[in-house]
Amino acid sequence: MDYRERIERVLERALPLTDAGSTRLIEAMRYSALGGGKRLRPTLVYTAGVALGASLEALDDPAAAVELIHVYSLIHDDLPAMDDDDLRRGRPSCHKAFDEATAILAGDALQAVAFERLAGSADQSPDEAVRRLTMVRLLAAGIGTAGMAGGQAIDLESVGRKLDVPALQRMHRLKTGALIETSVLLGAAAAGVLSGPKWQALQEFGAAIGLAFQIQDDILDVTGTTDTIGKIAGADAAHDKPTYTSLMGLEGAKAAAEAQRARAHAALAPLGAAGKGLEALADFVIGRAN
Amino acid sequence: MDYRERIERVLERALPLTDAGSTRLIEAMRYSALGGGKRLRPTLVYTAGVALGASLEALDDPAAAVELIHVYSLIHDDLPAMDDDDLRRGRPSCHKAFDEATAILAGDALQAVAFERLAGSADQSPDEAVRRLTMVRLLAAGIGTAGMAGGQAIDLESVGRKLDVPALQRMHRLKTGALIETSVLLGAAAAGVLSGPKWQALQEFGAAIGLAFQIQDDILDVTGTTDTIGKIAGADAAHDKPTYTSLMGLEGAKAAAEAQRARAHAALAPLGAAGKGLEALADFVIGRAN
Repeated sequence: MDYRERIERVLERALPLTDAGSTRLIEAMRYSALGGGKRLRPTLVYTAGVALGASLEALDDPAAAVELIHVYSLIHDDLPAMDDDDLRRGRPSCHKAFDEATAILAGDALQAVAFERLAGSADQSPDEAVRRLTMVRLLAAGIGTAGMAGGQAIDLESVGRKLDVPALQRMHRLKTGALIETSVLLGAAAAGVLSGPKWQALQEFGAAIGLAFQIQDDILDVTGTTDTIGKIAGADAAHDKPTYTSLMGLEGAKAAAEAQRARAHAALAPLGAAGKGLEALADFVIGRAN
Repeated sequence: MDYRERIERVLERALPLTDAGSTRLIEAMRYSALGGGKRLRPTLVYTAGVALGASLEALDDPAAAVELIHVYSLIHDDLPAMDDDDLRRGRPSCHKAFDEATAILAGDALQAVAFERLAGSADQSPDEAVRRLTMVRLLAAGIGTAGMAGGQAIDLESVGRKLDVPALQRMHRLKTGALIETSVLLGAAAAGVLSGPKWQALQEFGAAIGLAFQIQDDILDVTGTTDTIGKIAGADAAHDKPTYTSLMGLEGAKAAAEAQRARAHAALAPLGAAGKGLEALADFVIGRAN
């Protein structure tokens, strides 16, 4: 279940230090992409793909793509005009380590590299082209106006406003849920599963853990203030951002996370024993509170 | 040769005002993408594709994709951290009409929508999937570290520095040339021409007009100050940016543009009479000085 070493090597290869462009730009991309993070999204690609019979080699490109997209979104989210975060994973964020212009371009280029990975090389069979084009379609939809970028825009607009639970769910379903769900589906597509009961099972599973992930994030933002000495008080509350805990209370949010875990497990039924790895991942996503 | 009305309708359809995400985000994307511009890149897609026998319908998606990418690059280039331009096509630039965060996200989402257009719908023949995946590969390579984003990064680094002609050419080949060349090649790919003499002809043609386009831009920056009353003095000189005219003189730059026009025309020989439309486009790109 731990694919972190593998994705580290794959990302390293995806971002070579060549002299074809700007060394500084590639260094900024490598600074943000290499050597850190839970790598949850690539792990979802590998775990879902292996569950449906894909080889690890067939999963390297989509695994790299979702992480490159995730990293690009973090770089842009940290910009002064966005969340204005100077720190990321305990280090200066990209625009502090380099500069704002380089950080904007690094995010832009990471998005392009993600699609370049999905496109693969020129010598593919028609079957592989269909699989890869499906992955391009899924990723583009998952990060555009009806996905990650749309959710980030709603998030910016919602600061200081009162959202109800359905509106909050909708925002998170786009902002973080869409890429998590897409990661699971890219694993399926790389395995050649593009429709049918197993596809639908993974879609339902992805939606459930996408939602669970965000609820858990909100829970950690609260319990971190209580349990962890020296940690800055809940950043969401400080930014007056609506959260699951502020809307449902801590216990209500915990119950909602558990409900999504149950939903994720139930969704995996059509996979039988092959679903065990994904089941464990759902537990990991929600178990982070402990 | 004038495909501007068609691309306007195609872009309008590519950016529908839905309630699936943030209305403000989509409005910012539409504000920047609709109703303006020479539409040179989509015109190159249509003209190259038609020359090789593609239907206009088969060219709509790649034509939209290159223009969406061009618009995203303009939005990000105009940001305060980049070129800090408050005006674009005579109107407030995106971050002035909306705000910086929205402008960053609008550019990000436009890149995703471009790849979504290239991916197309799910019900494609394997042949079409191969063509479309080739287009994804070309576009991703043309706008990443070894293409547009890499060139923009080199441009940022070169302000105030002395570049020689080869270094200047390399920067422009990436920053503007790569997307222009890609536009021509997307037209070929949409026509099912993925290699061979016609492919090589269009590659050479695209490289020549990409270079010619930038030389002409530099010429206009100088002649505009001389000929056009009320026009702001050459912006490149003001920003201490290296240009073809500053390195070669005005007459030298004009000769270089003419040489690229000749190179573009010569490249089209393998297309015979079908190359007339592209020949006229090369004349248009370079004739802008007159």
